[in-house]
Amino acid sequence: MKKKIKRPIKPKAITAKGFRDYEGLDVIARNAMLKSVSDIYYHYGFDVLETPAIETVEALGKFLPDIDRPNEGVFSWRDEDDNWLALRYDLTAPLARFFAQHRNDLTLPYRRFSMGPVWRNEKHGPARFKQFYQCDADSVGVPDVVADAEMCMMLSDIIEVLGIRTGDYLIKINNRKILDAILEIIGLSGAEKENTSNYKRGIVLRTIDKLERLGFEGVEQLLRSGREDSSGDFSNGADLTKTQSDLVIAFLRGAGNNSQNTLSNLKDLVKGSAIGLDGVDEIEQMCNFCASGGFDDNIISVDPTVVRGLGYYTGPVFEAQLTFDIFDDQGQKRQFGSVAGGGRYDNLIKRFTGQAVPATGVSVGIDRLLIAQKEVKSSSDIQIGPVIVTVMDKTLISYYQSMVQELRGNDIRSELFLGNPKDFGKQLKYADQRNSPLAVIVGSEEVAKGMVQLKDLKLGAQLSKEINTNEEWKERPAQIEVKRDDLCVEVRKILDSHSG
Amino acid sequence: MKKKIKRPIKPKAITAKGFRDYEGLDVIARNAMLKSVSDIYYHYGFDVLETPAIETVEALGKFLPDIDRPNEGVFSWRDEDDNWLALRYDLTAPLARFFAQHRNDLTLPYRRFSMGPVWRNEKHGPARFKQFYQCDADSVGVPDVVADAEMCMMLSDIIEVLGIRTGDYLIKINNRKILDAILEIIGLSGAEKENTSNYKRGIVLRTIDKLERLGFEGVEQLLRSGREDSSGDFSNGADLTKTQSDLVIAFLRGAGNNSQNTLSNLKDLVKGSAIGLDGVDEIEQMCNFCASGGFDDNIISVDPTVVRGLGYYTGPVFEAQLTFDIFDDQGQKRQFGSVAGGGRYDNLIKRFTGQAVPATGVSVGIDRLLIAQKEVKSSSDIQIGPVIVTVMDKTLISYYQSMVQELRGNDIRSELFLGNPKDFGKQLKYADQRNSPLAVIVGSEEVAKGMVQLKDLKLGAQLSKEINTNEEWKERPAQIEVKRDDLCVEVRKILDSHSG
Repeated sequence: MKKKIKRPIKPKAITAKGFRDYEGLDVIARNAMLKSVSDIYYHYGFDVLETPAIETVEALGKFLPDIDRPNEGVFSWRDEDDNWLALRYDLTAPLARFFAQHRNDLTLPYRRFSMGPVWRNEKHGPARFKQFYQCDADSVGVPDVVADAEMCMMLSDIIEVLGIRTGDYLIKINNRKILDAILEIIGLSGAEKENTSNYKRGIVLRTIDKLERLGFEGVEQLLRSGREDSSGDFSNGADLTKTQSDLVIAFLRGAGNNSQNTLSNLKDLVKGSAIGLDGVDEIEQMCNFCASGGFDDNIISVDPTVVRGLGYYTGPVFEAQLTFDIFDDQGQKRQFGSVAGGGRYDNLIKRFTGQAVPATGVSVGIDRLLIAQKEVKSSSDIQIGPVIVTVMDKTLISYYQSMVQELRGNDIRSELFLGNPKDFGKQLKYADQRNSPLAVIVGSEEVAKGMVQLKDLKLGAQLSKEINTNEEWKERPAQIEVKRDDLCVEVRKILDSHSG
Repeated sequence: MKKKIKRPIKPKAITAKGFRDYEGLDVIARNAMLKSVSDIYYHYGFDVLETPAIETVEALGKFLPDIDRPNEGVFSWRDEDDNWLALRYDLTAPLARFFAQHRNDLTLPYRRFSMGPVWRNEKHGPARFKQFYQCDADSVGVPDVVADAEMCMMLSDIIEVLGIRTGDYLIKINNRKILDAILEIIGLSGAEKENTSNYKRGIVLRTIDKLERLGFEGVEQLLRSGREDSSGDFSNGADLTKTQSDLVIAFLRGAGNNSQNTLSNLKDLVKGSAIGLDGVDEIEQMCNFCASGGFDDNIISVDPTVVRGLGYYTGPVFEAQLTFDIFDDQGQKRQFGSVAGGGRYDNLIKRFTGQAVPATGVSVGIDRLLIAQKEVKSSSDIQIGPVIVTVMDKTLISYYQSMVQELRGNDIRSELFLGNPKDFGKQLKYADQRNSPLAVIVGSEEVAKGMVQLKDLKLGAQLSKEINTNEEWKERPAQIEVKRDDLCVEVRKILDSHSG
């Protein structure tokens, strides 16, 4: 009887669900953007900080929008000592931990920027992945809203440096204090019946955050008895009365035709509430500071619909929205929406220290901004490859090797063909697929003569498009023979002719 | 009775065990190094690839040195669908996954570089953390050792571009095939008695990797019956006979006074083995290729003691070692050791595809190289802060705001003091702690006159060192009054005087 051979099961070569790889120009573009954004933070006086990807769950806390599902949204696991560890879900929670850990050694105000990937264990979609990049700046120990105004001005500078012009974006500001006043007025202040009102507050906040998607009608349904979506799924509402719901809607519809009008509308709505009036006053101050920095109402303006999803905000909140139209895959006109945002969080560090530490910050969503930048900036999506030194004759490899090192020494990106050299056509095909500008071709005959062949691949591609007959092709050859001693000079000439 | 108030337990503000934060210049230096290293990879013709931090455990495989503890060394957890996910422990395993996933669309040879953090759940030490940076380049689909030679040349270029000179480092090469031949000769080829010999092979490989630490005597003990370390802990040996152990030791002692001699020693040792002679021949070819690229024996040389810990190598292996002396905390002279390494791994991708794909690569340990670079390059460890616009009078904040924006618009890094402005001395102390070059001071009096005060903090610090009496101090003031309209010009003058 034949012995059964156990075949090992092959592992699947796939990325984990919700993750993706990034190649070539995508990585280059992201790194360039991270540099642009962080250069502006640096220019505004912030210093860089890099915290590790892994933190204790305890230190991170739970501030993701889906506040009622405590362990959701985060990648976490137990270590050998049974402590829970997690991947950071943003850059603010690690900053709070860092500040609390080193508060006795840090100079106040503490101003830092950070950048890097963060991870969310959430449902992914076509343009929504479980790993994405953020670039944040925060000022800790800053009681005054002039610090919040600075965040808004920086956001404007960041967006413009990326090539998006005034008029194509808006920095929208609002204040959680005004929203708190509204909730206080309708009896959801949180002081009494804590659990019920906390629960309702949660629904109200998350509902407002969905305004853009659901519209006022959908929001009203969710504020009251609930809403059935197009798929038939029913979401519970906040069970507000009509009077309560009307005040929230009035707040959301509070925008006037400029920030001054909006502020006076909001002032009317919260006139009985000290915290509400304080909130309106803070935004008014921010607008003034921004104006004195040269940022007018057409760049930074008040918008009551901006609330930001995260649970830890306590004062001004702000959001950068791109206002130009884009067209989705179905050809439908759409607005691009939010690419960055932030706000004041005076109680986040208090978790650790017991004392409130005034702080404000901003987070730029690099991946969304990259998509936006592609919309406004037509950039080349062809990556130019290296010069390829081909292998005509395997016995000459040392000769080729010295050529390729000479090219590199003269600052010319180049490589020796390292695949199987048997089929020479495959080498040229490789050069073509890498978008190489030029191939160097040398056989024993050339070595004897002290010459090399240079094949101009860009010109060759052009010629093969323009010229149809072999006759013409021969008259304007894209391949020339030059002295071996002149290799680098002649290669440089051809490369320069490409960029000219 | 008084009601007991439940106080919430405060979370601990600490980094997770084995992790650390990096601030300012440390981050800047690492980013600069990642750029230098990846620029060389790019210059050699490699294109960038970024894979996600998280992969399936299945795709990553288990190739860490401690092969007998299968789940050790990796941060891993189960997702909602009960699949195991893990943080990448190197950049090679994700490359193998990527290549296997996209093999039908990739041009061969596939040449990519990657950089980023990797994570190991291993014992940490004072200079050994659970998150660290690697920067790798790999060539996939390259059967010839000319590709391995290229890796060694790149390593040399990388180390020299970082400021470490010829003579202060060595690229050491060896070949797993020679080691395999030795194991074959002593009867541990793996073909028979598979489990026992695999186990012994594992101990032999790991033992050799410890040569630098244990010396030949310690290695011999571990090759034979075992070894008791200074703490009294006993490690099992490979139970080799004296003859077996002697051949392994002879191999390790095979280095001659140059690569040519070493190769002839090794050829003698494996003369009966086809695979062994093949291995020697490959290294000989690599030496020749390197020489024709201008890299001689004093830069890239053969060393039988280099085996590399990872399990997947199948041919040439190489390692960059720094050879200059450093002094540890006890003032003891030590060698710096390995900062980068790699080798050929023709079977790693086979796991996925069933077909061997010839590949070779190199990994640079950025964190160790950073420490090394500090040893050879005396770099400033003071980070210059921004110009500080102080707040003399809170009612003038808009006025200050416009100044700071004007400075930024003129390319001068600056910030408005955002802390509590009550104590003016604290503002100057802040400027001092940030290493600010200059403070701008304006009160209502200056505003009325159209003037601003500029306090040269660098000159001020110098003066306060040099001058002891208040009289002299007044004669050479570090503070000048200039026109508000000339703010940027005058600030620039002072900054230029600092760098001059």
